[in-house]
Amino acid sequence: MVVGEIHPRVDCGTRPAKAVVGEAVPVRARIFADGRPRLRARGRLLPDGLAGGWRAARTFPLAPLVDDWWEGHLIPESLGPWRFRLEAWEDRFGTWCDDVARRLAARVDPGPELGEGWALLRQAARRLPGDQGRSLLRAATTAEGAGLERELAFLLDAELRNLLATLVWLPLTTSPAQPLWVERPRALFGSWYELFARSQGSDGLHPGSLAAVADRLPHLASLGFDVIYLTPIHPVGVTGRRGRNNAPVAGPGDPGSPWAIGSERGGHMDVDPELGTLADFRRLLARAEEVGMEVAMDYALQCSPDHPWVREHPAWFRRRPDGSIRPAENPPKRYDDIYPLDFNCRDWRGLWAACYEILDHWARQGVRIFRVDNPHTKPVPFWEYLVGRLRLEHPEAVLLAEAFTAPAMVRELAKVGFSQSYTYFTWRQTKEELVAYARELAEETADYLRPNFFVNTPDILTAQLQEGGEGAFRSRLLLASTLSSSYGIYSGFEHLERAALRPGSEEYLDSEKYQYRPRPDHGDPAMEDLIAIVNAARRDHPALQQFRRLFFHWADHPELLCYSKTTPGLEDRVLVVVNLDPWHAHESMVHLDLGQLGLGADASFAVRDLLDGAEYRWQGPHNYVRLDPARAPGHLFEVLP
Amino acid sequence: MVVGEIHPRVDCGTRPAKAVVGEAVPVRARIFADGRPRLRARGRLLPDGLAGGWRAARTFPLAPLVDDWWEGHLIPESLGPWRFRLEAWEDRFGTWCDDVARRLAARVDPGPELGEGWALLRQAARRLPGDQGRSLLRAATTAEGAGLERELAFLLDAELRNLLATLVWLPLTTSPAQPLWVERPRALFGSWYELFARSQGSDGLHPGSLAAVADRLPHLASLGFDVIYLTPIHPVGVTGRRGRNNAPVAGPGDPGSPWAIGSERGGHMDVDPELGTLADFRRLLARAEEVGMEVAMDYALQCSPDHPWVREHPAWFRRRPDGSIRPAENPPKRYDDIYPLDFNCRDWRGLWAACYEILDHWARQGVRIFRVDNPHTKPVPFWEYLVGRLRLEHPEAVLLAEAFTAPAMVRELAKVGFSQSYTYFTWRQTKEELVAYARELAEETADYLRPNFFVNTPDILTAQLQEGGEGAFRSRLLLASTLSSSYGIYSGFEHLERAALRPGSEEYLDSEKYQYRPRPDHGDPAMEDLIAIVNAARRDHPALQQFRRLFFHWADHPELLCYSKTTPGLEDRVLVVVNLDPWHAHESMVHLDLGQLGLGADASFAVRDLLDGAEYRWQGPHNYVRLDPARAPGHLFEVLP
Repeated sequence: MVVGEIHPRVDCGTRPAKAVVGEAVPVRARIFADGRPRLRARGRLLPDGLAGGWRAARTFPLAPLVDDWWEGHLIPESLGPWRFRLEAWEDRFGTWCDDVARRLAARVDPGPELGEGWALLRQAARRLPGDQGRSLLRAATTAEGAGLERELAFLLDAELRNLLATLVWLPLTTSPAQPLWVERPRALFGSWYELFARSQGSDGLHPGSLAAVADRLPHLASLGFDVIYLTPIHPVGVTGRRGRNNAPVAGPGDPGSPWAIGSERGGHMDVDPELGTLADFRRLLARAEEVGMEVAMDYALQCSPDHPWVREHPAWFRRRPDGSIRPAENPPKRYDDIYPLDFNCRDWRGLWAACYEILDHWARQGVRIFRVDNPHTKPVPFWEYLVGRLRLEHPEAVLLAEAFTAPAMVRELAKVGFSQSYTYFTWRQTKEELVAYARELAEETADYLRPNFFVNTPDILTAQLQEGGEGAFRSRLLLASTLSSSYGIYSGFEHLERAALRPGSEEYLDSEKYQYRPRPDHGDPAMEDLIAIVNAARRDHPALQQFRRLFFHWADHPELLCYSKTTPGLEDRVLVVVNLDPWHAHESMVHLDLGQLGLGADASFAVRDLLDGAEYRWQGPHNYVRLDPARAPGHLFEVLP
Repeated sequence: MVVGEIHPRVDCGTRPAKAVVGEAVPVRARIFADGRPRLRARGRLLPDGLAGGWRAARTFPLAPLVDDWWEGHLIPESLGPWRFRLEAWEDRFGTWCDDVARRLAARVDPGPELGEGWALLRQAARRLPGDQGRSLLRAATTAEGAGLERELAFLLDAELRNLLATLVWLPLTTSPAQPLWVERPRALFGSWYELFARSQGSDGLHPGSLAAVADRLPHLASLGFDVIYLTPIHPVGVTGRRGRNNAPVAGPGDPGSPWAIGSERGGHMDVDPELGTLADFRRLLARAEEVGMEVAMDYALQCSPDHPWVREHPAWFRRRPDGSIRPAENPPKRYDDIYPLDFNCRDWRGLWAACYEILDHWARQGVRIFRVDNPHTKPVPFWEYLVGRLRLEHPEAVLLAEAFTAPAMVRELAKVGFSQSYTYFTWRQTKEELVAYARELAEETADYLRPNFFVNTPDILTAQLQEGGEGAFRSRLLLASTLSSSYGIYSGFEHLERAALRPGSEEYLDSEKYQYRPRPDHGDPAMEDLIAIVNAARRDHPALQQFRRLFFHWADHPELLCYSKTTPGLEDRVLVVVNLDPWHAHESMVHLDLGQLGLGADASFAVRDLLDGAEYRWQGPHNYVRLDPARAPGHLFEVLP
């Protein structure tokens, strides 16, 4: 017997696959044997360190699909490292029944097979619980030899067969154990809101405060956001500080990039005194908890020239032969306000430990989510150390990797253990691009890479948003929030901010990276309404809280995209049709694969649009839609039971 | 640095990938590092047991493609187990040159970088061979400090850069070693001809002989066949013998199925005395060698009730509780002439060893190819034992698996070590089916599964051949012989035999499995001409001797299939257009991906049809073809240099 091609399995089982507590993770394998006997299989799921080991592990069922594939779902119950393995065996009594049934169908005398049937039945009875086994043996003794017809009636009885099919026949064929890393549900599902703390409550000339951020939380919570992500809140360097719109020299009062971390006021473990105190930050965490949100902190491993480390640990920075520290550069860009760290320096042990201490420090304050800046510019072994240690000491921590780089590195960082990854979503805009990319994420890398679809970031204002008006904002929001279980907006978005630094640039004009950007507490009302509705739908619909069960249905029109998301048992079914064209109404037939929705080919079924509450009755696979961006970016249907 | 996603790699490196002596096997991996430095990489190839280990291993170059993929080719030189691994490093001087080039392009002063450039140059010079290194150091000492322009001219000199790019900078990042099993070229490439020895020289009532087979070899050699595969030549059982057209009872003089092996005259180690003696068989082997052919022997692990093992080893057969041996059955079919062996019996060690002895016996007679009957009905661990032992003691042996079963088992047997596999080719008939299946073989399983495309077998006469007339025979021959590096015909084929047992059956009428089928030595002349031409083309064109570099080009017409095969260096380029319709002429534009043929987008190039010698001049990607099955099944073009 062979149990092979096991999924989920990452890098041949050398890296753990990912799951969250309570998630139904699909498990698949090819299970087959010579001679095509009747097989049965199950999985076992074990938290590392469980007393009793595999014998004490919970089992979960596997059922056959086509081509020797078997499938089941495992559901881990707690944080940390788990393992699963698969076990298969021959249902020998079932094989015998199948064989006899074939003989009967082919009008071949099954008489010579009866002896083996009775022998198997006796073996099986001995494996049944005492009373059940004994009474079966007694009945068998009476029936055996009672004549072919009565014997067959006894042996082929459906109830008996079902009973014996529950038995596990030895020997088992057991797969190698497969590692699994289990995180909090927030690692899989969340609606993120990004802001610069210093803009909150600012007048444009003076910084805002952490207290003002705390005051704004109830409104963000009412919009349905789960996570507020703060760009760095540490002291900002003075040397080399950039001015407004990335001017090489800062003007008086310019606050500088918050990613130029560190000044005489402190480094990565400190709060910028202009924003408040550590106590203010703790109050912000507490306020977030009160309104049902979490705070994500920025983790950017680089230093301003004024960072205490530059004095205290000069060996941690890369130097030229003349002894000068090499600033961050990407010619023609040069960042005199930032010194990169040299992760391969002689004192790498000291540096790596110090980097870990930063995470540990904030985790002890209560931060449980970190958004990691530019992880792809640091060595992979560093992340293996850092993430590995964090997993042990703070298993509740969620890490989002901001690796805007080539696919191989994006995947590698996810395999190393980052909980989530920024993606190429902002640049996937046509129907073809979106389908190909979402499929890659849902089918190819889902076992280890969890996407977080940001619609914009302080660095990314796409031409599509610059030029597509409100319609583009609305359709991108609907796409991000329904394609991916985690998504986010950066705070200009709900205000429909779309002025670029210059034509052809994805940089914002008057970028918040270099100046205070006070905004009204409330964004564009229509936009905020839509945000509140999609976020509520995401909280109400488990189908939207995962990204594996995503299926694209055919829509005739090239600007209309149709897809469904469902829970494994089809308890929840969401069907989305998005108009990708921000300007024009389009109509189209959509052709549903009704099997994906658990519906028969000719089913009549009702759908309710969660965006406007309208209900429609649909009939069969082919249905008509018309979407006008002036009214709505699409349909967000719940398929009614 | 990461060296990952290595190909070829089978089951995570737990099974060897396959290659043949002298084959250029493509090797690919993703190689990348943080910070995007200039990388270099190479492979190392090592026969197991080489003195000196990896340090003594040959290297082969790897070059970058897109998305961090690197590719190269390894060429093993001898039979047996090999390993390869990949090594990558940073070309630190090259990284520096790239950085300075970017600065110059962006008009940024490279002055502060010069010191590092000189330092790297000195490190590099110390790695060069003595004289070369010393003279470079002298020149550097003169040039350093001579002013920015002269220093840059020296450091960025293309010749210097190329020289230093050949250096291997430490530390190396090394992949795990990947196992490789290297076989004879015949495992990859061969044209097979299958016959029943007993028909050869038969008058229809009496058996032919091995001597008559030997006499026929020169003709088969003249048709270009490489392998003659003999169905079993062992004594045939009498008990339960089947009659003509699979009648349950044999008539007088019916020879019985040759797969019902064993009688009082002997078993698997013996030659049926009716066909000749072991000496005759040895003479046949010698004659084959003289004409440049090899003999493939049938290895069918089952016994007639008269097989000596039934008496000598009763424990090797599966019995019912009443002690009777269970004959082979597939209800409603029942094969009273065949007892299956019980590979899981108590004396499995004895049985497995005896099965090995059969192979060993014939290998010692000089047989180097075995066609293995129904391997999927025996346990996989048995094959692991058998193939593993054969590999050690007879590494020149080639094994063809006749596993007509579900894909998972077909693949598993290939992974276990069978050299070749029968395939689903006969049942892949439409353009869509052929493209999907050939792609699966060339792209998905090529590292371990080598296809052998038989156009027919004694069990498989497809409806397509029954109904498609000579046209179907011709187009299937052209497909099989050009899509797959190994292909075969069973001896009715060149006679255009196509009478089925009954409508809807794939069995031959008057099947040779149950009776003598004397035939003229020469088949249909047009068919034999075509066979000789395609076999000659296969011998002349290395592109046709492999199945990895297969590319399908678009042909507008749904009955026309267009594909090319090329050698890795594009030294040989074959372009095939087949008319799948056996009855009607069709014309179509074919749209070539000229890059696949190493041609520019607007290239003008000549093609010569190997079927009729006609030459055409083609221009650019879009060209016209018209194929009339009355004239030819297709074009078999050689792309001229």
